Amino acid sequence: MEKVLLLYSGGLDTSVMAKWIQENLKKEVVTLTLNIGNSNLDEIKEKAISLGVSDAIVEDVKNEFAEKYIKKEIYADGFYGDYPLSTAIARPLMAEKAVKYAEEYGCSTIAHGSTGKGNDQVRFEVTIKALNNNIDVIAPVRDWNMNRPDEIAYAKSHGINITYGGKYSVDENLWGRSIEGSNLEKLTNPVEDDVYEWVTPPKNAPDIETELSLEFKNGIPSAINGVHYSLKEITERLNKIAGENGIGFINHIENRVTGIKSHEIYECPAAVLILKAHKIFESLILNKNEADIKNYMDFQWSNNVYNGLWYDPVMEHINAFEQSINKYIEGEIKLGLYKGNISLKTIDSEYSLYDYDTVSYDNSIFKQDSAKGFIDIYKNNTVLGSAARKKTLKVIE
Amino acid sequence: MEKVLLLYSGGLDTSVMAKWIQENLKKEVVTLTLNIGNSNLDEIKEKAISLGVSDAIVEDVKNEFAEKYIKKEIYADGFYGDYPLSTAIARPLMAEKAVKYAEEYGCSTIAHGSTGKGNDQVRFEVTIKALNNNIDVIAPVRDWNMNRPDEIAYAKSHGINITYGGKYSVDENLWGRSIEGSNLEKLTNPVEDDVYEWVTPPKNAPDIETELSLEFKNGIPSAINGVHYSLKEITERLNKIAGENGIGFINHIENRVTGIKSHEIYECPAAVLILKAHKIFESLILNKNEADIKNYMDFQWSNNVYNGLWYDPVMEHINAFEQSINKYIEGEIKLGLYKGNISLKTIDSEYSLYDYDTVSYDNSIFKQDSAKGFIDIYKNNTVLGSAARKKTLKVIE
Amino acid sequence: MEKVLLLYSGGLDTSVMAKWIQENLKKEVVTLTLNIGNSNLDEIKEKAISLGVSDAIVEDVKNEFAEKYIKKEIYADGFYGDYPLSTAIARPLMAEKAVKYAEEYGCSTIAHGSTGKGNDQVRFEVTIKALNNNIDVIAPVRDWNMNRPDEIAYAKSHGINITYGGKYSVDENLWGRSIEGSNLEKLTNPVEDDVYEWVTPPKNAPDIETELSLEFKNGIPSAINGVHYSLKEITERLNKIAGENGIGFINHIENRVTGIKSHEIYECPAAVLILKAHKIFESLILNKNEADIKNYMDFQWSNNVYNGLWYDPVMEHINAFEQSINKYIEGEIKLGLYKGNISLKTIDSEYSLYDYDTVSYDNSIFKQDSAKGFIDIYKNNTVLGSAARKKTLKVIE
Amino acid sequence: MEKVLLLYSGGLDTSVMAKWIQENLKKEVVTLTLNIGNSNLDEIKEKAISLGVSDAIVEDVKNEFAEKYIKKEIYADGFYGDYPLSTAIARPLMAEKAVKYAEEYGCSTIAHGSTGKGNDQVRFEVTIKALNNNIDVIAPVRDWNMNRPDEIAYAKSHGINITYGGKYSVDENLWGRSIEGSNLEKLTNPVEDDVYEWVTPPKNAPDIETELSLEFKNGIPSAINGVHYSLKEITERLNKIAGENGIGFINHIENRVTGIKSHEIYECPAAVLILKAHKIFESLILNKNEADIKNYMDFQWSNNVYNGLWYDPVMEHINAFEQSINKYIEGEIKLGLYKGNISLKTIDSEYSLYDYDTVSYDNSIFKQDSAKGFIDIYKNNTVLGSAARKKTLKVIE
Repeated sequence: MEKVLLLYSGGLDTSVMAKWIQENLKKEVVTLTLNIGNSNLDEIKEKAISLGVSDAIVEDVKNEFAEKYIKKEIYADGFYGDYPLSTAIARPLMAEKAVKYAEEYGCSTIAHGSTGKGNDQVRFEVTIKALNNNIDVIAPVRDWNMNRPDEIAYAKSHGINITYGGKYSVDENLWGRSIEGSNLEKLTNPVEDDVYEWVTPPKNAPDIETELSLEFKNGIPSAINGVHYSLKEITERLNKIAGENGIGFINHIENRVTGIKSHEIYECPAAVLILKAHKIFESLILNKNEADIKNYMDFQWSNNVYNGLWYDPVMEHINAFEQSINKYIEGEIKLGLYKGNISLKTIDSEYSLYDYDTVSYDNSIFKQDSAKGFIDIYKNNTVLGSAARKKTLKVIE
Repeated sequence: MEKVLLLYSGGLDTSVMAKWIQENLKKEVVTLTLNIGNSNLDEIKEKAISLGVSDAIVEDVKNEFAEKYIKKEIYADGFYGDYPLSTAIARPLMAEKAVKYAEEYGCSTIAHGSTGKGNDQVRFEVTIKALNNNIDVIAPVRDWNMNRPDEIAYAKSHGINITYGGKYSVDENLWGRSIEGSNLEKLTNPVEDDVYEWVTPPKNAPDIETELSLEFKNGIPSAINGVHYSLKEITERLNKIAGENGIGFINHIENRVTGIKSHEIYECPAAVLILKAHKIFESLILNKNEADIKNYMDFQWSNNVYNGLWYDPVMEHINAFEQSINKYIEGEIKLGLYKGNISLKTIDSEYSLYDYDTVSYDNSIFKQDSAKGFIDIYKNNTVLGSAARKKTLKVIE
Repeated sequence: MEKVLLLYSGGLDTSVMAKWIQENLKKEVVTLTLNIGNSNLDEIKEKAISLGVSDAIVEDVKNEFAEKYIKKEIYADGFYGDYPLSTAIARPLMAEKAVKYAEEYGCSTIAHGSTGKGNDQVRFEVTIKALNNNIDVIAPVRDWNMNRPDEIAYAKSHGINITYGGKYSVDENLWGRSIEGSNLEKLTNPVEDDVYEWVTPPKNAPDIETELSLEFKNGIPSAINGVHYSLKEITERLNKIAGENGIGFINHIENRVTGIKSHEIYECPAAVLILKAHKIFESLILNKNEADIKNYMDFQWSNNVYNGLWYDPVMEHINAFEQSINKYIEGEIKLGLYKGNISLKTIDSEYSLYDYDTVSYDNSIFKQDSAKGFIDIYKNNTVLGSAARKKTLKVIE
Repeated sequence: MEKVLLLYSGGLDTSVMAKWIQENLKKEVVTLTLNIGNSNLDEIKEKAISLGVSDAIVEDVKNEFAEKYIKKEIYADGFYGDYPLSTAIARPLMAEKAVKYAEEYGCSTIAHGSTGKGNDQVRFEVTIKALNNNIDVIAPVRDWNMNRPDEIAYAKSHGINITYGGKYSVDENLWGRSIEGSNLEKLTNPVEDDVYEWVTPPKNAPDIETELSLEFKNGIPSAINGVHYSLKEITERLNKIAGENGIGFINHIENRVTGIKSHEIYECPAAVLILKAHKIFESLILNKNEADIKNYMDFQWSNNVYNGLWYDPVMEHINAFEQSINKYIEGEIKLGLYKGNISLKTIDSEYSLYDYDTVSYDNSIFKQDSAKGFIDIYKNNTVLGSAARKKTLKVIE
């Protein structure tokens, strides 16, 4: 019998799928559940088995997620608008694992639970096909237009234990929490407080500043207040510290890869804090040429990742650029966290381009009398252009 | 006798220059003082006359500054890093007026008070030369290496009334306040509270949210809480409201056009608030193609303005692009201001691309069953590329 | 009875469709035939009527094509790789006319003859939907997988007069001729001489140089050898003159919007010549800032047009930029045409930034002694960056 | 006595300098002469010694030039407009060697022969300072305004053997020959045939096509017609073969780093041929994402190199990107060379993305019926944007 590998979360959608695929497609189901955040793998595995699947694979990939995915995002200052791509960078990891286990368990098809309007279907399918173009992909929610009432009826009639989700549609991993749906779909409604979970709303956050020191090494944070941790641990700790201080709440309107606008809420305390610190280091360490080109490359990186192209050939080259530049992003930064604000206290780096002596007066490195000559040549491009245009009457206000 | 037009602020530097040019260059001095923010024109004029200048021109240009300069910056979401270019956009206006009056009063030379390490000398001189390449420019502080002790001695011996500046070197106009120097030059010192003037530090700001509605018309704000004002008035009012709520304080490291890094503090409450609102409107109104290209053009606009190229020929074309796109930036936005945080409450626009019906399920505009075909073609570029590379052993991790 | 507007070329595909839609879809057919190049409208109209269509609209749009489409491409130096987008810019005009007549004749559907692998289906359908989202679009060749043998059988059995095309699949309009298919699909075969029609292969072109003078006005050519013509006439004349001299043959590999590579041959003598002249004018007239930003905008323009986005909202703004810059592209250029080579003889423009006096020695505008100061400041960004990196051991070769 | 290292070509300028520095600056002179093209090192060394210098260093760096500089340019498709940066990439090599020998021979100053209007002074001085900021740089032609008549008089009175240059100012190396000055400075004069030296004017080139096969390996050519050579040898051979066939003549208007326009003639037969072949390989091997980002990076690379920033920190990262992408540029290409034309015959690569089966009809990889769904989603961004704008009256033609 043919086998389908199902990316299984334990929720209603994928539980119905597990049964439905066996019953209607007459195929064996192998479930794969990855812990990228707070999943209870034992519980989910048990539930999968109760649905009659032939294998229920579970794996904790939090460390791998930090070392292979989050790291590259910090390198590239990954933001899509205000969104630090938290869900977006987990999808290729899930797809990569799905392909790996599908090959191992002899599954010819991978099933995922995404709908037809969103980005995740694109991220899953492009990645799976890039890694193994011979594997088929199905997305039952989309392809057979499953809807919630039908799913609930099906679950009840098949003895599937229903875990109702909350009011919103939520996705979580180490790098952030995304919230969609319900009242959020009306832009004429203010966001309600019940969307907050990881972040304390600024008004409820402590009325005292928390000071924090971060050490960066090779482009990523390596220590908090002098104590070294793995990137995974740093992310976990900063999610807590920054979240408590009202940091990392994002409320923005997004251009989906499917060409429509959506309203998205994210809670990404660690991501927002780490990326902010990384950016400040760059302002200290990179020269203008580096900063400008990195700005372009980061934009490409983020667009590609958002749009599901983690495994596009171009990413190898962009990452080569990012790695080359990030080896200089090192040093120590002190930040103040207060009710949603991150403020720079002090910063230092052995690669700093900031030079106190150059900035303060009366020194010999910066020759002020060169400035006149500098401007005299620097102006040519503008002045010659401007002069040529003024010869005629065409210049408009 | 030849005449020099001096950009005169009433401070120590330019007061010494007024006298010095008469005494040492044996030229008549015409002073020009512009009110772009809070200058007391009567007082400064009186002081200029007391220095023996032949004419003391004063002009209030706040409205012109708003309508011709601030407007274009809002169009272009002008930011250089975190800095809304407040000083940078006032310099070309000053240079433009200086050229106009120099021509009118028959001055062959323009004198300004900038030093040799900064951006302003570049902004003044490129603009002056672009507008009239026959006018000479002198910058006594730079060209004759005037320093503070010498200036004070000169002032005392020539009966010039010395108005000591504060601890920091400050520049102010309608669009913002910039603070440099003193302890700020040490990055290993935290910024002290005495730099704050326009912005109430978040910890001291009211512990209650201020709600605010802004109407945008043709790319710029036209009303606050339903009451229409000129752009100048809106800016003044928002400087107050946003500043009181801890908004608009900027602490960043900057790449000067002269190739060095500097540490700059800015207070730009209205600018930060208006540009944030403008950006949110763009996220609602512009499609992805427009947003991406505008992102590039805004970057060019800001770099050029920062680098003194307001009158470079290219700016005419960039502004044509920005004007074309901004005519659609219209609507109403409600924001919450609280201790340094700006949060989106509601937003609406007749040009909104956000469609509730498309986002919510079960509708006919977005066809979910098209998604499978979409991904099947969309993936080709990535999958074919990926497949070709895997044929060989060169692919690296 | 519902009506279908069919974009009708008179060839096999669309002739079969005309009949097939009546017979199988039970709908009335209105044909639309546009002359954008060398179509014989009378003959095609007659053939359409013989197929039983209810209306056979014909229109000569060559002039409109030149004034609304070709002009914008010259502004934007439109190239996709080596290809001057000849077919690509005709598709939105065809779609625009199709929508106009569909609305006028009450057709609820538009039918076109494109296949499912190419760009033209995308260009037609995006444009139609952007102009009127309520019109349905069908592409019988693609949607019902019509193939040539079936079409021929169908034509024979329905008394449709078959005009066999040549060996290649060809599309022609005023701006160029595109050739696909047959042996061209094997990259390991050299291109055969029988693809040439508009261009004389260089080896057969005259062994003597043809000199030509072109006048540009407002960004586009306005006269040849001193005689003024419309843009349409200039294009026709230059197709002949340049083609005879071996100019305008393009052989390249292309990235289709559908994500696959194709091998394309184009003959675009006038386009290649005009765009070359336009580029040379730009090198004379635009300063570096303008040239660099125009380079980016042109790239976006071409990508969008190639990808079917002529009516995307962003194009309004890009065209505003292009129009702003092109009003300065004026002057006279003399070129030599010889066996595929275009060589610059002389060039002049009232907006020229080239200044003989500045370039030749011993003059006062360019001050050589400013250069030392210029370099001293200009170097800072690089030298400070370089110095900071050398402090440590990380610098790699 | 202090020592000056003089970049010595053996020509009038630098011969006069050699003597002048000893006589007027009272410093020892060490000359450095590099063979990057066709210099006769023995002869020049003898001449240097005759001028009384304390050391006359000579080195053949042609191979190093190819392996460290030309290679990187091929990677980056280096072009500044139509110019393959031939002189520009030799300057940093000369500066690098000058610094190396200055350090070795204890010279505190480096002297070069560039003038004050050009690019080379910038390239020399930025590179020298980036490598060793403690070395002083002098450029006597610029700094003391040496002019030709004075130099000739000085040479005669000091017994310096004068080798008159030709009509033009010429610079040559392995990668190309640049020609400036004389009649070329008038754009209203056609270029005369006496500028041609490496390239046979097309009208005089053989009236028969030369076929050529090139093998590329790791981004650079490795074999001609099946015979392997070093990059230096390939460049030398292709200069001859391509030059004889009228290829590599460049006549363009250039934006100098000093902000002025100049008219430049170049002869770069090998460069033009190799870069053309490299570009064709890219069109076969890179996907659209890679091609677009490489296009941007190449542009940055070329601008930086033209502007003297070979050793700017950003170049390390750009080169990392370029190296990453170039490892796939491999394969065999056959080209026809005929009177200035390069035509593609055949091309093949193990990394080719061109797939005959996908392009030809009736196969299973490209699913034509996915196209309808593709366009239906792909259109959203444009159609939604277009629809929102049409709701109102603001849309302009």
